[in-house]
Amino acid sequence: MSEKPAILPSGATIGILGGGQLGRMLALAAARLGFRSHIYCPDPHSPAFEVTPHRTVAAYDDMAALRSFAAAVDVVTYEFENVPATTAEMLARLKPLRPGAKALAVSQDRLAEKGFLSSKNIPAAPYRAVHGLADLEAGLGELGLPAVLKTTRLGYDGKGQRVLRVAGEAEAALAALQPHPLVLEAFVPFEKEISVVVARGLDGAVRAFDPAWNVHRDHILHTSTVPAGIAPALERQAGMIAKAIVIALDYVGVLGVEFFVVGGEGKPGLLVNEIAPRVHNSGHWTEAACLTDQFEQHIRAIAGWPLGDPRRHADVVMKNLIGAEVETVPSALDGESQPHLYGKTEIRPGRKMGHVNTILRQE
Amino acid sequence: MSEKPAILPSGATIGILGGGQLGRMLALAAARLGFRSHIYCPDPHSPAFEVTPHRTVAAYDDMAALRSFAAAVDVVTYEFENVPATTAEMLARLKPLRPGAKALAVSQDRLAEKGFLSSKNIPAAPYRAVHGLADLEAGLGELGLPAVLKTTRLGYDGKGQRVLRVAGEAEAALAALQPHPLVLEAFVPFEKEISVVVARGLDGAVRAFDPAWNVHRDHILHTSTVPAGIAPALERQAGMIAKAIVIALDYVGVLGVEFFVVGGEGKPGLLVNEIAPRVHNSGHWTEAACLTDQFEQHIRAIAGWPLGDPRRHADVVMKNLIGAEVETVPSALDGESQPHLYGKTEIRPGRKMGHVNTILRQE
Repeated sequence: MSEKPAILPSGATIGILGGGQLGRMLALAAARLGFRSHIYCPDPHSPAFEVTPHRTVAAYDDMAALRSFAAAVDVVTYEFENVPATTAEMLARLKPLRPGAKALAVSQDRLAEKGFLSSKNIPAAPYRAVHGLADLEAGLGELGLPAVLKTTRLGYDGKGQRVLRVAGEAEAALAALQPHPLVLEAFVPFEKEISVVVARGLDGAVRAFDPAWNVHRDHILHTSTVPAGIAPALERQAGMIAKAIVIALDYVGVLGVEFFVVGGEGKPGLLVNEIAPRVHNSGHWTEAACLTDQFEQHIRAIAGWPLGDPRRHADVVMKNLIGAEVETVPSALDGESQPHLYGKTEIRPGRKMGHVNTILRQE
Repeated sequence: MSEKPAILPSGATIGILGGGQLGRMLALAAARLGFRSHIYCPDPHSPAFEVTPHRTVAAYDDMAALRSFAAAVDVVTYEFENVPATTAEMLARLKPLRPGAKALAVSQDRLAEKGFLSSKNIPAAPYRAVHGLADLEAGLGELGLPAVLKTTRLGYDGKGQRVLRVAGEAEAALAALQPHPLVLEAFVPFEKEISVVVARGLDGAVRAFDPAWNVHRDHILHTSTVPAGIAPALERQAGMIAKAIVIALDYVGVLGVEFFVVGGEGKPGLLVNEIAPRVHNSGHWTEAACLTDQFEQHIRAIAGWPLGDPRRHADVVMKNLIGAEVETVPSALDGESQPHLYGKTEIRPGRKMGHVNTILRQE
């Protein structure tokens, strides 16, 4: 580094695009470091609006509102990867945008993400771009069945994808997902899914939290358990890949990397499934088991502060509270559990309402 | 208990009297449990106003503003013990006030506090009420020199007290502190000061955090270290006394008890120095070393939730950042430290600006 990066002083204002639970938890972490937060979100009922007096209620493409927002803050970050490219570019001209536009471009588009991983020799599932039925049939020929057809953009929690188990399903899947640009991915018969939450500071320092083992239900994260129950060599490999990704992206902030553990007992390996340029649901366990949690780590990074200590002091399981499950708090809380509720006023099926971290004691 | 206490649902609003750092940290803890916070404080620059959009800026005796505040919240708590009695009584008629008026009455007045402790056979330093020079001279005759003359109300951080080392100082000390009601306390040659932060739930459950060893500088808390370095029997005794106090007060919430450790190696004992019916500076270490910290514990208690687990998972020292010391963050942060800054805009000598918890590793 040619010069020492600017350190944002306590008291400065962090601008956060997105007012969901991640934005809320970022604002809470920012407050613990003495920062103010200004939340930008089109939804006037955003849960993050409850934890700061500074807000902008406007669309993500409202350039006048974005300009006022930029003028009111000292650095801009975001809680979701689908920030429009024009919005990101405009904000980045006015204030530091961290993580930067490169991370957004790569993670917004599955093809760009896979191209990036491939260019860095980072293992991921084989894939083919699909512009029509000819591509899809050729891809199925090369990758085999089953395979997964996905939109390249805006997919999450199982939305925007179709599993193809027999060749006859190709046309219907195509019809269901087009006209969006698509990508065909080989179906990976994985042992488990794990993830690593990694941070890179403005000074280039890189620190990773321990890998978590993630279990999904109905395509939504159900639990993250740490330690992940994989071989130490795989744990180290996951951390190294996550670090390589943030270094390659010249990244500042916290990033989540999801992996498939493949190959079974004989020859275990890792494939990157997805990267998310933000704090990550599978990193919520860090609140209970680390001195610095992922939210504080992100704020430290984007403020130019030294990264905190990511070491884990306990075994832990994080359980998401989906929909009406939130009503089990507080009555079903047991002794060594730490609830975190998002203050969402309306309970809806499939909606993330909170999570509970529970310390796992050795018998 | 004749009936199950009402549980405040997540999403309800906690009303907090006082907008300093303790109110701010209570509001942050409330947010993690999905509660809203409404801060009531006369100072428009209160740091707690930065962590919620709900505020009332008004004097503590503004009955109209207090009524509106009560109407906007579901439970009322406070960050300081000097809530005027009429204010507390009025609020308590409109909404649950937790902790209740009894705890305020006892802790606002040193004579009431000492009378309460004495009535419960809880050891404290000998004392005499002082209404004039005759009382003072008689008190000095009984308690001996040195002794400490204190105002019965509104003393903190060394303000409102004089140490008397020779009999000739009596008249001047009296002149300096009158016309306030006064109390003369025997000077206790203590080994160290410790404190226990204890909680009592609405269901009557009582849980104490480990004792901390407190070191003051210029009459302001400098460090709290845990473990406190006292004999296990004394640790247990401190916890038992703290629990006895919250039970005797029919208390709901977190309370801090300061003790003097007296008597040396031969016959160690404890004297209660002071109780504070609120979260306590000497309990900030719980943020780094406990699954449930003192702020969450207080919110759980006043919301009728089950108390969290107060067990400590690490040795820790909390250091206050006074005045310009706050500027050592972030540059002087070392690896295993957790800063908490209060977002106060103006640095003043003697002002509590933040604190840093540092994990103590075994060599």
